[in-house]
Amino acid sequence: MQSKKIVITGAEGFIATNLILKLSNINKFKLIGLDSSIAKSSNKEFTNNKIIHNQIDISNSDDLFNLIQGSDLIVHLAARGNVVESISNPIENFKSNVFSTLIVLESMRKAGVKNIVFSSTGGALMGNTPPPVNEDSLPAPISPYGASKLCCEGYLSAYAQSFGINSISLRFGNVYGKYSSHKEGVINKWIRKSIINDCVDIYGDGKSTRDYIHVEDICDGIIASINRILESQKLICEKYHLANNQEISLNDLSDIIETSSKKKLLRNFKTLRNGEVIRNCSEYDLAKRILNFEPNKKFEKEIPVLYDWIKENEF
Amino acid sequence: MQSKKIVITGAEGFIATNLILKLSNINKFKLIGLDSSIAKSSNKEFTNNKIIHNQIDISNSDDLFNLIQGSDLIVHLAARGNVVESISNPIENFKSNVFSTLIVLESMRKAGVKNIVFSSTGGALMGNTPPPVNEDSLPAPISPYGASKLCCEGYLSAYAQSFGINSISLRFGNVYGKYSSHKEGVINKWIRKSIINDCVDIYGDGKSTRDYIHVEDICDGIIASINRILESQKLICEKYHLANNQEISLNDLSDIIETSSKKKLLRNFKTLRNGEVIRNCSEYDLAKRILNFEPNKKFEKEIPVLYDWIKENEF
Repeated sequence: MQSKKIVITGAEGFIATNLILKLSNINKFKLIGLDSSIAKSSNKEFTNNKIIHNQIDISNSDDLFNLIQGSDLIVHLAARGNVVESISNPIENFKSNVFSTLIVLESMRKAGVKNIVFSSTGGALMGNTPPPVNEDSLPAPISPYGASKLCCEGYLSAYAQSFGINSISLRFGNVYGKYSSHKEGVINKWIRKSIINDCVDIYGDGKSTRDYIHVEDICDGIIASINRILESQKLICEKYHLANNQEISLNDLSDIIETSSKKKLLRNFKTLRNGEVIRNCSEYDLAKRILNFEPNKKFEKEIPVLYDWIKENEF
Repeated sequence: MQSKKIVITGAEGFIATNLILKLSNINKFKLIGLDSSIAKSSNKEFTNNKIIHNQIDISNSDDLFNLIQGSDLIVHLAARGNVVESISNPIENFKSNVFSTLIVLESMRKAGVKNIVFSSTGGALMGNTPPPVNEDSLPAPISPYGASKLCCEGYLSAYAQSFGINSISLRFGNVYGKYSSHKEGVINKWIRKSIINDCVDIYGDGKSTRDYIHVEDICDGIIASINRILESQKLICEKYHLANNQEISLNDLSDIIETSSKKKLLRNFKTLRNGEVIRNCSEYDLAKRILNFEPNKKFEKEIPVLYDWIKENEF
């Protein structure tokens, strides 16, 4: 098979870095990375010899058009993923997540690029719909971040039917793992606090849950989606939840971090913040059936691994 | 009850004009109209003494903030409603429909305006989901226009939960009726063609259907929604289909226009256009139960009325 040219947006990001490392072991792909570099990740050092990095603001359609021309598929991972930030500045979040995605789609249409794999969200999209949710659940975002991802899914649907652009939207659970040093998700933040013996803030009673999923499982789902789109003979516009179908509470997380660190984690309980989902858990039956997706990484085993990685790489 | 201040966007538009004429008979409302005037409607002449008109681009947040301050509710009707135009220029449609709605919501948040009634769509939002659809159907837009309305519904959901802004999204069927001289929908276009003995273009085999609903029925649904929001003691974020639950084909429409005109309508069959829904019909059970919504106007009776209105007002 002729080598396929894959463009990855947000290429310096957490998920992209893990994906590039996996994809670079597969000979059939030639990789092009796009990133604005505003997230100040230093992940490039891990992938510099695996992908051609380009610093670009993807909302600049001329630059984007030139870089994606002739490519077979775009893995669109660039986004502002912080729910709390989306509440304090919905417009900035909108520009980065929604407007940029529309520019990606328009540029694809003009450049004749026909395939896209998109990083959506399970939790933020479904809001406080009682878990577990799946692809038949009605979207009901409770934060601007969740709304931004729903918008993108809507435009992917329109661009499939109006312009023949194939897409797979992957609704990620809460992703954790290596190459996340620039990220401020709860797991990374708490591990850092534990390392420096600082107190963690728990918003709510600690019983809020998330469906955590390891980044390598996510990457396997992305690669399965890339292959599915590239091999398909008919128009594809699909959505899949990639998650563990398992609720882990903030209290559970605290306990696992204590096990990892072999010391007490100091906990400070605060009022629940607006726009943050209380419970979150997604079934992945459809992804299992169609993409052969099955998460393999166990939370209890992987948190201590991440603990050590953060300690080694950030301290 | 103290008089409530209602802001109507797209105030020179087709639905707004009908709404203003109805609302102005209800003493408890003080009406403020906003419109960019880009649609070149001459409807102002019918409503000038019923509402204070303001020419404003609602994506200019400073102007908008000043005009909505102190108001009780916004009826947000301003939008580009043309599916075919949204396909030829998705970005323009996005700016008018999605970005402007986000600016409306941000301005409401900053000005402390707590209530909004939003004009969404049934057909374009649901795409080619087999009819009848209802509020439990999964959105699957097939045009940028449909996607734009899904985006707005998503942000309304987020702004309710993150910022306490009450909203009712009304998913209109295909609305027809008076004060539509600036509109290019199929009914108006075909009536005009019939009047000048011109040939009409039918995209597809004429069996495509729409769920047509009279603008006065729509206005009754909007007014019921205004009252529901203003009277509610708790946070509201609701969606309702306002339609007739009746499929009328293009062939049916041609026949009714022939009956209205008492002459043959010349028909020219063309290939179906991308992004246009084939069949469309929505149940309105939820609106009936909660809003007491029941469409009263009969299509067979109202098309001849509209025929005469267009003949009198446009020729």
